[in-house]
Amino acid sequence: MPNNTAEQISIERDLTDRVVSSFEGTDDPRLRELLGALVEHAHAFVRETRLTEAEWTKAIEFLTAVGDITDDKRQEFILLSDVLGVSMQTIAVSNPAVHNATEATVFGPFFLDDAPEVPIGGDITHGAAGELCWFEGTITDTDGNLVPRARIEVWECDEDGLYDVQYGDERMAGRSYLYSNDHGEYSFWGLKPVPYPIPADGPVGSLLSVTKRSPLRAAHVHFMVSAPRLRTLVTHIFVEGDPQITTGDSVFGVKDSLIKTFVRHAAGEATPDGRNLGQVQWFSTRFDIVLAPSDTAGGTAQK
Amino acid sequence: MPNNTAEQISIERDLTDRVVSSFEGTDDPRLRELLGALVEHAHAFVRETRLTEAEWTKAIEFLTAVGDITDDKRQEFILLSDVLGVSMQTIAVSNPAVHNATEATVFGPFFLDDAPEVPIGGDITHGAAGELCWFEGTITDTDGNLVPRARIEVWECDEDGLYDVQYGDERMAGRSYLYSNDHGEYSFWGLKPVPYPIPADGPVGSLLSVTKRSPLRAAHVHFMVSAPRLRTLVTHIFVEGDPQITTGDSVFGVKDSLIKTFVRHAAGEATPDGRNLGQVQWFSTRFDIVLAPSDTAGGTAQK
Repeated sequence: MPNNTAEQISIERDLTDRVVSSFEGTDDPRLRELLGALVEHAHAFVRETRLTEAEWTKAIEFLTAVGDITDDKRQEFILLSDVLGVSMQTIAVSNPAVHNATEATVFGPFFLDDAPEVPIGGDITHGAAGELCWFEGTITDTDGNLVPRARIEVWECDEDGLYDVQYGDERMAGRSYLYSNDHGEYSFWGLKPVPYPIPADGPVGSLLSVTKRSPLRAAHVHFMVSAPRLRTLVTHIFVEGDPQITTGDSVFGVKDSLIKTFVRHAAGEATPDGRNLGQVQWFSTRFDIVLAPSDTAGGTAQK
Repeated sequence: MPNNTAEQISIERDLTDRVVSSFEGTDDPRLRELLGALVEHAHAFVRETRLTEAEWTKAIEFLTAVGDITDDKRQEFILLSDVLGVSMQTIAVSNPAVHNATEATVFGPFFLDDAPEVPIGGDITHGAAGELCWFEGTITDTDGNLVPRARIEVWECDEDGLYDVQYGDERMAGRSYLYSNDHGEYSFWGLKPVPYPIPADGPVGSLLSVTKRSPLRAAHVHFMVSAPRLRTLVTHIFVEGDPQITTGDSVFGVKDSLIKTFVRHAAGEATPDGRNLGQVQWFSTRFDIVLAPSDTAGGTAQK
């Protein structure tokens, strides 16, 4: 094969070296490192797959379509990163495992920083429809010390799989923040989460379709927990028994340690706080959160 | 380091494996292969560089900006591929070296398929301004057989570094096609090429600026040569002595074998075809083109 000759291999390798060298004048050493690694991997992809010019053209067209659908409200580049697991891999390397600390997962596009505060035991649904669920747990550090006054942000979709911001009106529902009490405990009323699809009407949806992947995310509730001297935790909890966990979460966010039991309670069964829910069933779940020390974020390069 | 533990390495590797597996249901085996290689390299980039969440956000913002400036007339994704040498690497693997065949280089965005025909010795400038140059050469196959009736497409910018299509009017200038004669020879009048910048007012220009790279392309004339049973050649010729060849062509298109001597002729010196140019100097260059067999395109996977 003409392209397996030493000459051809040398031509291809030399080109990569010249491109890496072209970034040598970059002042910022980290940018230089990132560009060098980007060039090495992008070129290796082309060399190893023997990418054709027609395939390159298709790739350009795909990225152009991703750009076309992206605007202030729709971020198709993030979706692409998500379905390729690149977002989750970034989370993994940025939040290295610390023995018993709660694992992190993807942040997602639906957080708002001006959600309303609720007290311990408060209701974060603010009218969002769905089956009510009592959430409770403790916040501790990795040594088992309880963490009072940790800030707990919670957000989730309603029973139709939609976040408040997706309705395009002014509603704020299915989200709030609260603080753990003096004993490091928290509790609130929210909704039992349901699976929902990521936006699938764009090029990323076409990619999922042609590769026969589900656009559904496993049902989950978002948490972001922060406290002084501890690493901020961005995570979800998932619902034990959700079939989408087996089918495959479309953004690879599921970790076994984050799958929680949601206990079903018959209508009329007494609630933990004595709230009268009338004749509807309700759920409860427990999520004990362990925060890593703040100096464990990020990490050093590894091969 | 917590992130260098066997557990952390296993978490990161397992994620990559799960994402690759998610594409197993893809019917098209080539698409499955390409997506698998894409995921492997994208994840390896994140793992090796220990990409931070802030850097990931910057990357998303950069790609979003590339998408924002791209429209029917401006293709910033191609520019990005070009300045990272990815376009040229695709050319390299798709047009493997065949002993004495003329080397290929990037196609560029300025080809038009409805350029006018000129006869042998004709003028392809059609009014484009610049210093006139006589181009001549032969077309042969790799066994040295002359190739009659090869179709030769030629296009180039004017002395201001602009292609006809960049003026936004209806002009067609600095481009044509012609056929080699019965002896496999061709000749035409064109312009001695000049260096020009790739569009540098977008995110790719910012990348070049922060990495202190020149946006200039080395001076060149585009050729595309096709004939039955021979591999279509897309290439340029460059100008010996052009300082930009040393500084670095912004898209890595230069190959030593494509650098040609442009001979300067004093005003009044006789032209090859007896054309009277009046009192202006002119140039001449020779480009003998060797076409590879058509069955040498593309290639098999190599590591």
